[in-house]
Amino acid sequence: MPIPDKMLAVTVEGGKKAITVDRPRSPEPGEVLIRVERVGICGTDLEMFEGYTDFRGIIGHEFAGTVVEADLYSWIRRRVTASINLPDGALGTIDEDAAKHTPNRKALGIRGMDGAMADYVLLPEGLLVSLPDSVSWAEGAMAEPLAAAMNAVEQLPPGENPVLLVGDGKLAQLIARVYLSQGGELHVVGRSDAKLTMLEKAGAKVLDGAAKAGEYHRVIEATGSAVGMQSALAATAPQGTVVCKSTIAGSTELDLSRLVVDEITLRGSRCGSVKQAVEAIASGRNRVEDLVSDVFPLRDANKAFKRAVEPDALKVQLSPHGA
Amino acid sequence: MPIPDKMLAVTVEGGKKAITVDRPRSPEPGEVLIRVERVGICGTDLEMFEGYTDFRGIIGHEFAGTVVEADLYSWIRRRVTASINLPDGALGTIDEDAAKHTPNRKALGIRGMDGAMADYVLLPEGLLVSLPDSVSWAEGAMAEPLAAAMNAVEQLPPGENPVLLVGDGKLAQLIARVYLSQGGELHVVGRSDAKLTMLEKAGAKVLDGAAKAGEYHRVIEATGSAVGMQSALAATAPQGTVVCKSTIAGSTELDLSRLVVDEITLRGSRCGSVKQAVEAIASGRNRVEDLVSDVFPLRDANKAFKRAVEPDALKVQLSPHGA
Repeated sequence: MPIPDKMLAVTVEGGKKAITVDRPRSPEPGEVLIRVERVGICGTDLEMFEGYTDFRGIIGHEFAGTVVEADLYSWIRRRVTASINLPDGALGTIDEDAAKHTPNRKALGIRGMDGAMADYVLLPEGLLVSLPDSVSWAEGAMAEPLAAAMNAVEQLPPGENPVLLVGDGKLAQLIARVYLSQGGELHVVGRSDAKLTMLEKAGAKVLDGAAKAGEYHRVIEATGSAVGMQSALAATAPQGTVVCKSTIAGSTELDLSRLVVDEITLRGSRCGSVKQAVEAIASGRNRVEDLVSDVFPLRDANKAFKRAVEPDALKVQLSPHGA
Repeated sequence: MPIPDKMLAVTVEGGKKAITVDRPRSPEPGEVLIRVERVGICGTDLEMFEGYTDFRGIIGHEFAGTVVEADLYSWIRRRVTASINLPDGALGTIDEDAAKHTPNRKALGIRGMDGAMADYVLLPEGLLVSLPDSVSWAEGAMAEPLAAAMNAVEQLPPGENPVLLVGDGKLAQLIARVYLSQGGELHVVGRSDAKLTMLEKAGAKVLDGAAKAGEYHRVIEATGSAVGMQSALAATAPQGTVVCKSTIAGSTELDLSRLVVDEITLRGSRCGSVKQAVEAIASGRNRVEDLVSDVFPLRDANKAFKRAVEPDALKVQLSPHGA
């Protein structure tokens, strides 16, 4: 089936809806064109509309799709997702861990590079991660957020259980599953009864009210709010560690004297290895599909963005071609 | 010489001057009464007048003095300083490292326990650290801040040189000496030409203007200001660590998204081992006496507090008995 010259896409400048844009050019050697089957809406996407970055163009970095054009014939019809950080001028396979902090890197749908919230996306081969047939499109598009959750858990220093998780949103749910699948013990504070019930079912202990002050040696902040960060700090024991995952746009008021007096370590965590996340999904170690609460056609992106900020929504995905 | 019933002291409620108060009661078993020979003014002392804590009573935790009364005769005439954290109900020798984070601990002149900015101070034996004769009163009263500097350096993870030091005040000077005495390489940014020259003489490289953004894997913030913290964060490389030593009263605006995107670790550091600091001074490893810029009689505490905040002052000490 020939690919039309125009396509639907969500761009920072176009706002929270699908608009018509030119389809990407044909792949050059080392590149592939992917038909996007699923693409998720992430907190970072929402913040980009608030001026979180200078990025202009197509957003979207949580996706799964089918390679439809490629210089290298063996890529055609492959089911793929992708890691998102592209070092400047990189060729060949990309080391995910090294790439995420390369200066002048590009990042899929975030920095210097059009993203996948569109009918099609053009990508360098080096970013591609193959999806086994057992991994669904919904799951494939959850690999990137799962990778971020895995990285947050990896940032915890070794230490005693339970770990405290602050938050009950989709990121918190992923983090809980990763940590519990490693045999860890988890206490959680959150706001939504339904989401806390999901966490309880996953094996976490839901606390009644606030966490006890200064009780937890290891804490993960996954609300993305200044209030969440303050609760996390309040619950942290002297010489404890708070891993903060969420990108909070702008600056946040923090009581640094508590950090110093109690010698607390605050550790930022961003993205993880998409390849390892795909393996975790394929092996059945981390279930993710039930965290997709809604799927909209790409043309209804406006509805999807409204839905994504409703309190009971979890992951909202777009399906450009009905998959 | 009999000890009079009244003495001079600086209290939180009395403000930045010496007032007349009752002398401490006589020591019970396990306690000693010390004639304070030197006591330094610290940033924490200044902040306590701004409402940094609920503490009321005599301040001062950087001191050296002579034991003048004790239940145990062998303490009499001993030259001492002290570690500052006292676990609730502690008896006997105190483990400095464990004590600093005990819940309900007292802290000399900071929490639940009168300090040493007075003619005399009553202390439990367990806090005492003996001063060798080679250590002067001025040096003895510098042991506690030196310990804090040693602890800040210990909080640095292993890694590449140079380390960036943000700040040129008395704490920064101590930190620089500790790190350089370990053979480390140090870059410094600061504001005072005279203080930067001292750092240069100690072996640090003084940077022209701001530190290069994102260049340093290991950074120590020693200004105690929000601006200093922002400069420290700006200079930190992805996945780098910022150790923050200073107690900044109240909350501080921090760009947490940078912490997350660049996966930076922020680590608070408070006090260190006074015993080890005394050893470092006695062995000649860390010179500290030249950092005492001014000495005032205790009765002129008002002048000393004014002097302590002048831009060219370093450590200001009080001498209650003319030593």
